[in-house]
Amino acid sequence: MTMKPLETRGGSSPINPVERLAALVGDDLQAVDVVIHDRMASDTPLIPQVGMHLVDSGGKRLRPLITLATARLYGCAGENSVKLGAAVEFIHTATLLHDDVVDDSVLRRGRPSANTVWGNKQSVLVGDFLFSRAFQLMVETGAPQVLFILANASAVIAEGEVMQLRSSKNLAVAEADYLKVVTAKTAALFAAAAEAGTMIAGADATHSRAMHAYGHNLGIAFQLVDDALDFSGRQAVMGKTVGDDFRECKVTLPIILSLKTASDEERRFWRKTIEVGAQEEGDLSRAIEFLERGGALAATVERARQYARAAREALSIAPDGDIKSALAEIADFVVERAY
Amino acid sequence: MTMKPLETRGGSSPINPVERLAALVGDDLQAVDVVIHDRMASDTPLIPQVGMHLVDSGGKRLRPLITLATARLYGCAGENSVKLGAAVEFIHTATLLHDDVVDDSVLRRGRPSANTVWGNKQSVLVGDFLFSRAFQLMVETGAPQVLFILANASAVIAEGEVMQLRSSKNLAVAEADYLKVVTAKTAALFAAAAEAGTMIAGADATHSRAMHAYGHNLGIAFQLVDDALDFSGRQAVMGKTVGDDFRECKVTLPIILSLKTASDEERRFWRKTIEVGAQEEGDLSRAIEFLERGGALAATVERARQYARAAREALSIAPDGDIKSALAEIADFVVERAY
Repeated sequence: MTMKPLETRGGSSPINPVERLAALVGDDLQAVDVVIHDRMASDTPLIPQVGMHLVDSGGKRLRPLITLATARLYGCAGENSVKLGAAVEFIHTATLLHDDVVDDSVLRRGRPSANTVWGNKQSVLVGDFLFSRAFQLMVETGAPQVLFILANASAVIAEGEVMQLRSSKNLAVAEADYLKVVTAKTAALFAAAAEAGTMIAGADATHSRAMHAYGHNLGIAFQLVDDALDFSGRQAVMGKTVGDDFRECKVTLPIILSLKTASDEERRFWRKTIEVGAQEEGDLSRAIEFLERGGALAATVERARQYARAAREALSIAPDGDIKSALAEIADFVVERAY
Repeated sequence: MTMKPLETRGGSSPINPVERLAALVGDDLQAVDVVIHDRMASDTPLIPQVGMHLVDSGGKRLRPLITLATARLYGCAGENSVKLGAAVEFIHTATLLHDDVVDDSVLRRGRPSANTVWGNKQSVLVGDFLFSRAFQLMVETGAPQVLFILANASAVIAEGEVMQLRSSKNLAVAEADYLKVVTAKTAALFAAAAEAGTMIAGADATHSRAMHAYGHNLGIAFQLVDDALDFSGRQAVMGKTVGDDFRECKVTLPIILSLKTASDEERRFWRKTIEVGAQEEGDLSRAIEFLERGGALAATVERARQYARAAREALSIAPDGDIKSALAEIADFVVERAY
């Protein structure tokens, strides 16, 4: 399986649908970046240093883009949706900072992670700072209901991370339990980003529920493809890190699916590398070989495709137009990057 | 200097003013505990386990008590002030969980800290969960302005902790810079707790500013006395830990004041134990001896007394009555526990 990163131009469009959607929300995405820089300011200079290290490290602003797009889909553009988008990105950044501490990660987006450069303590505190700023931004939008949605999402994210800690090194994790983790740690923020955008535009509950379903399904598809890409030889060629989950002994969907039909040799291999955590040189290549040969990577991407389809279907009640089309294509695009 | 903990009955009153204030807010303080238990619930059982470990460890609920008292002082009791009080305690608990990770603390309130029992990862994530729940509770009060105040306080707390990291092991920290740290990491939440209580009762800006000043000054007094108590032999006798700041090489006000008149021998001692961090058996006793002999502990408590006086003065515009009296006496009581 060959894979390409999200930035690569895709399929029949001249530009990929993420870029197209960014163009459709006009200057609002740049305005989000202005707000992010503004609100990161502090008399304690280390805070913007640590925060911007991550914010400027090539993130795609996919979550705030979804907020801006759903808001515009229902007729809202400008200041409030921009502040909401910045709040969504702050929550995302805060969870990444804490995530890297929790996972002892050394790299993030191909660069040394903030905890590697400045230490765990700083990452915890700057994450807290960004969480707080996110909630202040949301108060300024004058829409407390979006605040409730996003506060709930961030509680769910924390629950998801705790669940994942429990399932680390545990090969007995069931597919359904793993999907619960993915729903909590990744899909909850996508769902809240889409739902909050819809709500801030004043759309009714039927629509905000539908956009929540769009974000939820898109988020699961996104994470499952990420899980597959972590075992992709193609990623390494493109300068992205590979095998992060493997090194952290995380049991993700490719491994769970692989175990269903694994030979004794494979089972012994997973027990040694994941349960015991005794990894030697060459083990990542063997892991990739096992997952490719048994079809687990393809099966993981196929699961992702089903969620992408559900995301598309959730969009059906939304007003037709360029934004709706771009959101639909993003669902496919998130899966396509696996090829 | 002999010292006694906050729980001890004090002075001329039959019960101490904290207990008296708790009685004056009626059932609201118990109601706060009910909300805390309720909202700590999660399908991930580790979350309430870690959270309640700290919440049930004998905290005095001083911050939510101040919220309930200021709300009642201006005519508001019941559900919304109770939810706000629970939110204040959640923010406090979340910062303690993260604080213990940042300081590598082994003990908290004389018991093993949550990070000692469950690990740093769990403490970070449960802290995030509690932050999120705090903001949800505040949304439910229907008073977005209190949410802004408390979100700002929690950003300021994070800034204060980062500032403190920078000044760790640094004997050149100026008194003014140390007071900035104390203002941010401790006084900001007391100030926000008092201000938010006043605002939720619908009092005007003059009163909410005054109650903010009360909380701010009370918080500084509280922290300075804590700094002094950390070097008190009396604390050890009462089963409380002593020397936590010393062991963590924190430069607090007693040391800063002591350095102003320190002999060469004392200077060498502080450089070795705090800057280099080379602490041997008997060093804590020597530190206490130096601080007592030079009058630095007494001077720290005297500074605290000045802030307590400012807290009392800030109360002057508040409506007279039992609650106002109890709040005023708490300001003195916070300092009295040093004797």
